[in-house]
Amino acid sequence: MMTGAARMQPINPTYRRTFPPPVMEARRWIEGKVFAPEKPLIMLSQAAPVDPPPAALARAMADALIENPASHLYGPVLGLPELRAELAAQWSDGYGGMVRPAQVAVTAGCNQAFTAVMSTLAGAGDAVILPLPYYFNHKMWLDMEGVETLALPTGDDLLPDPERAAALITPRTRAIVLISPNNPTGVEYPPALLGAFFDLARTHGIALILDETYRDFHSQPGAPHDLFKDPDWDDTLIHLYSFSKAYRLTGHRVGAIMASEARLAEVEKFLDTVAICPPQVGQIGALWGMRHLGQWLAGERAEILSRRDALVAGFGGLEGWDLLGCGAYFAYVRHPFAKPSDIVAREMVEACAMLVLPGTMFGPRQTEGGTGQAEATLRIAFANADRDGLAEVVGRLATLDL
Amino acid sequence: MMTGAARMQPINPTYRRTFPPPVMEARRWIEGKVFAPEKPLIMLSQAAPVDPPPAALARAMADALIENPASHLYGPVLGLPELRAELAAQWSDGYGGMVRPAQVAVTAGCNQAFTAVMSTLAGAGDAVILPLPYYFNHKMWLDMEGVETLALPTGDDLLPDPERAAALITPRTRAIVLISPNNPTGVEYPPALLGAFFDLARTHGIALILDETYRDFHSQPGAPHDLFKDPDWDDTLIHLYSFSKAYRLTGHRVGAIMASEARLAEVEKFLDTVAICPPQVGQIGALWGMRHLGQWLAGERAEILSRRDALVAGFGGLEGWDLLGCGAYFAYVRHPFAKPSDIVAREMVEACAMLVLPGTMFGPRQTEGGTGQAEATLRIAFANADRDGLAEVVGRLATLDL
Repeated sequence: MMTGAARMQPINPTYRRTFPPPVMEARRWIEGKVFAPEKPLIMLSQAAPVDPPPAALARAMADALIENPASHLYGPVLGLPELRAELAAQWSDGYGGMVRPAQVAVTAGCNQAFTAVMSTLAGAGDAVILPLPYYFNHKMWLDMEGVETLALPTGDDLLPDPERAAALITPRTRAIVLISPNNPTGVEYPPALLGAFFDLARTHGIALILDETYRDFHSQPGAPHDLFKDPDWDDTLIHLYSFSKAYRLTGHRVGAIMASEARLAEVEKFLDTVAICPPQVGQIGALWGMRHLGQWLAGERAEILSRRDALVAGFGGLEGWDLLGCGAYFAYVRHPFAKPSDIVAREMVEACAMLVLPGTMFGPRQTEGGTGQAEATLRIAFANADRDGLAEVVGRLATLDL
Repeated sequence: MMTGAARMQPINPTYRRTFPPPVMEARRWIEGKVFAPEKPLIMLSQAAPVDPPPAALARAMADALIENPASHLYGPVLGLPELRAELAAQWSDGYGGMVRPAQVAVTAGCNQAFTAVMSTLAGAGDAVILPLPYYFNHKMWLDMEGVETLALPTGDDLLPDPERAAALITPRTRAIVLISPNNPTGVEYPPALLGAFFDLARTHGIALILDETYRDFHSQPGAPHDLFKDPDWDDTLIHLYSFSKAYRLTGHRVGAIMASEARLAEVEKFLDTVAICPPQVGQIGALWGMRHLGQWLAGERAEILSRRDALVAGFGGLEGWDLLGCGAYFAYVRHPFAKPSDIVAREMVEACAMLVLPGTMFGPRQTEGGTGQAEATLRIAFANADRDGLAEVVGRLATLDL
C-alpha cells in the first residue's frame, strides 16, 4: 500500500493560491509574547466588540434556551419570519423606502451573506469590481471561487470613482462591491456617490452589493443613502448587514441580506447547503435587540463617534503620520517609516506593544498620490480603545521609531 | 434610467441549474393544508429531533450566556480548543486510533463541514463520486460549484461497489463521498467495505470523505470501522461529524471535521470567509454534551434501535412494499404503486396525512434490479415517531391505495 501525504491530498489550486486568514495570521505575531505590565498590548487588529452584549439581551437569549424549545431546533433556511419582518419594517422606515419581508434573508453573519449572494452572481471565470483597499475576506472568496477581482484604485480620499469603475466593466463582470462606512478605511461614501454607482450598475445590468455592516456608527444622522427609495431598487441593489457590531453578537453569527425575491431563491440554495439555517439563539437575540436596544445603540454610536473625534485630534499632532480615513471602527493611516507596512506592523508588536493590520493585507498598491508608498498604510481598528486608550495609542506612535 | 428586473439580476448559471432545497419544497406541499384531528399529519420528511436537548444541557448553555462573556464573542476560526481536544480524545479512544486536536476542526454544522472540505478539494471542472441515492445537499453543492457528479449506482442492497467506483475514476476525480449509516437509505456500510474504499482512494491519490453524522445510532457496538487505526489515515480520510442529532442541537449549528493539518489549513480559509467562527453557544453545548451525556445518548440510541426493529417488523407484514434499507433515522422503501415517487409522496399528504420525501429527490435511477422502477422509492425519516406512531404509519400504509 502506498503512503506519503505529500503525493496524496488533492488540493483545489484556487485554494493554494488564496492567502490565509489575515486576522489569524496577525494573532500568531503575538503568540507567546510577553508584554510589560506598565505597557500592555493594545489590540487594534480585529473589528469586533470585546465586551458582551447588555445584560438584558443576554438574559433574553438565556431565557429562550430554557423556555422556548424551538430555540434549539432547525428553523427556516432564510431565517425566522419575525426577524425578517422586523428588518423589513425598520429598514423601510429608516431608509424611507419599501423593503418587504420576502426581500429579507437572515444569515449566519455578514461574511456568509456576502459569500451567499456572490455565489449566486459569479462563478469561475466571471469578474467582480472591488475598490482598493478591499476587505480581505471578500478577496479571499473571489480567489477561492476562481472569480477574477477587478481592483479599482482610489486616491488619497479613498473614494472609488464611478467613471474609472465603468472602464473596468466587461461582459464577464457581474457585480460591484462597496462597503460604507468602509472596512478597512472608515470612510463614509456620500449618498450621491452611492447613487452614481447604483446607476452605473443598473445601466450595465450588473449587481451593486452594498455592505453596511458599520452603518449604525455612521457620523451623519438619517439614512446614509436614497437607494431604497427607488421602487425597483431590487433589480440592482443587494444590501448586506451585520448584527455583530450593533448588539455585540459576534459569537452568535447573525447577519442579513436585502435583495429581490428571485435572488433570495438562489441564495436559499447556498444557505441550505452551507448552513441549513442561521443559529436560532442569535436570531432571537437580534430580534430582541432590534425591539429593545434602540436607545442603547444610540449611546454606543455617540461613544464611537467621540472616540473617532479623539483619534482625529490625536493624529493632528502626530508628526509624519497621515490620517487618510477615519470612521465607524477604523482609522486608515500612512506611517512615516521607510519600510513596507507588513514589516512595520510586525515590528510594532515589539516596539510599541500594539497590534494593527498592515495595508498589505488589504490589497496591492492601495492608494495613489501622496508619497506613492502605497504599502505604507495601516488599519487601526480603534473602536475598542476608550479615550484614555486612544491617547495612549497616539502617545506610543509619537515616540515610535522604526 | 432603465428598469426591468428580468433583464437585470445576473444569475450564476450553475445556480439556475441547481434544484431548490428539497426539505423546503416538501414543506410547501403541506402549507395551508388542514388535517382531521383523528388523523393528524405525521411528519417523516426531515432527519431532525423535534424535542429540545435535555434540560441540564439547555441550562448549561443558558448559564454560559450569563456568566461567560466569551460565549458572545468571536472565537478561533477552527473552533474552541477545548472542544477540538475533547473530540480528538474521544475519537482516538472510540476508534482505537490516533486523532490529534490539530486534526480536528469545528464547523457550523455538518453541511458546512462538507462544503468546506469539498471546496478545498474540487473546483469547477473537477469530478467527485457519489453513490446513489445521494444526500441532496451534497449534490447541490457540487452542482453550484460546477463540479461534476460521478453517480455510482447501487443494487437492491444499496451498498456501493469499490470496483465499479474504480471504473469511474479519471485524472479529474478528486474524492469519493460515503455516508454511513447512510442518508437517505439508513444502510450501515460494513467495516471491510469502508476499508476497501479507503484503499481505493489512497491508491488513486484522492480523498475519501466519510460522513458519520448518524454514527451514534449505529446498530453495532464498538467502532464502525478501522480507518483511524492506520497511522497515516489523514493522507486519505476526511471524517465528518454532526452534533445536531446526538444532543438535539440542530438549531445551534455544530459539526466537526477530522483531516490532516494541511487540509485544515485550507479549510480555515473557507471557514474564515463563510463563517468567521462556529457559533459559540453551540460549541459550549456540544462540549458539555460530550462530557456529561454519554449515558443519556446510549439511551437515545437504544430507543432509536427499538423503533427501527418496530418498523422492520411492521414492513414485514406490508403487502407490496419493500424495505430496502433501515437504520439510524431512515427507512428507504419501494412503494407498490404504478406512479413515480414524487407523485406518490405528494398524494400521500392528502391520502394518508403523511409527509415523506420521494426517492427522486435523491438522484436519478437510484437502484438497479428489483422491478426496475428506480423512481419508486421513498425515504421515511422514522426516528421522530415512537412505537405507537410507527404502528400508525404502517397501518396507514397498509390501507393506502394510489
